[in-house]
Amino acid sequence: MATKKEQPIILITNDDGITAPGIKNLIEAARTLGKVVVVAPDKAQSGMGHAITIGTSLRMDKVDMFDGIEAWQTSGTPVDCVKLAVDKILHRKPDLCISGINHGANHSINVIYSGTMSAAMEASIESIPSIGFSLLDYKYDADFTAARFYANKIIKTVLANKLDKHLLLNVNIPSIPKKEIKGIKICKQAYAKYKEEFDERIDPHGKKYYWLTGEFINFDTAEDTDVLALQNNYVSVVPVQFDLTNYKLKKLLEKKKLFK
Amino acid sequence: MATKKEQPIILITNDDGITAPGIKNLIEAARTLGKVVVVAPDKAQSGMGHAITIGTSLRMDKVDMFDGIEAWQTSGTPVDCVKLAVDKILHRKPDLCISGINHGANHSINVIYSGTMSAAMEASIESIPSIGFSLLDYKYDADFTAARFYANKIIKTVLANKLDKHLLLNVNIPSIPKKEIKGIKICKQAYAKYKEEFDERIDPHGKKYYWLTGEFINFDTAEDTDVLALQNNYVSVVPVQFDLTNYKLKKLLEKKKLFK
Repeated sequence: MATKKEQPIILITNDDGITAPGIKNLIEAARTLGKVVVVAPDKAQSGMGHAITIGTSLRMDKVDMFDGIEAWQTSGTPVDCVKLAVDKILHRKPDLCISGINHGANHSINVIYSGTMSAAMEASIESIPSIGFSLLDYKYDADFTAARFYANKIIKTVLANKLDKHLLLNVNIPSIPKKEIKGIKICKQAYAKYKEEFDERIDPHGKKYYWLTGEFINFDTAEDTDVLALQNNYVSVVPVQFDLTNYKLKKLLEKKKLFK
Repeated sequence: MATKKEQPIILITNDDGITAPGIKNLIEAARTLGKVVVVAPDKAQSGMGHAITIGTSLRMDKVDMFDGIEAWQTSGTPVDCVKLAVDKILHRKPDLCISGINHGANHSINVIYSGTMSAAMEASIESIPSIGFSLLDYKYDADFTAARFYANKIIKTVLANKLDKHLLLNVNIPSIPKKEIKGIKICKQAYAKYKEEFDERIDPHGKKYYWLTGEFINFDTAEDTDVLALQNNYVSVVPVQFDLTNYKLKKLLEKKKLFK
């Protein structure tokens, strides 16, 4: 951990790749708050979930893209980037890991599929406080003004408060002008899913192929969900954990003794 | 859901690929318990986590590999397989989805990285009761005798008891002879992680490349963890959920009002 004299070390990664505008905006949001080091994928890795690279080896190259900021691109997934950063670049744990700013929402069930959040979760498993940021706008040229402002505010708050060594926050920012955002809401993950439909097509050789498409459906009517907060023009902050045990079901199964 | 006259439909997938011995053993464990349909990746997908295929299209081909069993291989991830099966093969939800039998452990933190468990989790999100099975033996020619026996027992129990529409179980089977297994234990996910070290090498052109390696470390001293149950020669069953909200931290953050 940083002493008073030292700046905190902030590791930045993402899943849209090192050339995505979102990561540049996250660097801007964080660079005055500590010593920023960037280790990010050399290409887009959206939807990679918590994938790691086992079957192939990895490449990592230093890049000079962000004025005065040490930055590396790797051939790996977002999770690989965090592992490589700790073991090969920093040779220590950073004081904070931030991931994003993702081009597109990672609220509700998206936390499961998101490479942005998986990178943050990997850091959290490693006892590195961590935050994933996502803007509800998929466009390359999205306006990150409000996202940058709220990212800075949340990073500053997390650095100033020792809350939990496994602290992991999923932050989503609505795609509206900064002045229309009503503030920050602490939320739970909404129970929602995608209703999949595959778009079936025929290739020039007469063979079928499929594109994944899906319609988002929110089933959760609770008042403290991230989906509702975002609909009401709040920035949503969901504290996330990596213990996936369903303790309620555990108790039920223990009581019923079905597997004896 | 199946009526009394109908057999339950059991969807089988895995992450080691459709040619892996583990899936063949899972088919053997399930084929007398319902109408089995196999939709699995055409190649190994270990460590894919909850990856989905967005940037490329998917292929799916019928294969005749398992005597009398309808089977399809796809170019997608384990999660893609579940989505494709429901939308394009079954045209309905199966009564149960089972994934595996994985060649290698998926206890404790492995649930996060595992393609086997992500396929099962995808089904659970879709309100399909689901079970992931893993044998603690990475070898291709591992002995699945005990695993097959316990898979059959657990599948039978789950089909006979309506427990939860999102039921999701992470089952790990120790790699020992069946007669040495002491029974089944309902467990929680142990808090454990991998201490990563990248093996740095130099390619024939003088450039560095890296292989991910890691040493497993269990930090959890509780008596109800999956790691301990497996060490004590039990089959471990961890009920898993996809709501990742850290409710304890949510309450703390709400109380502290740090982000106001």
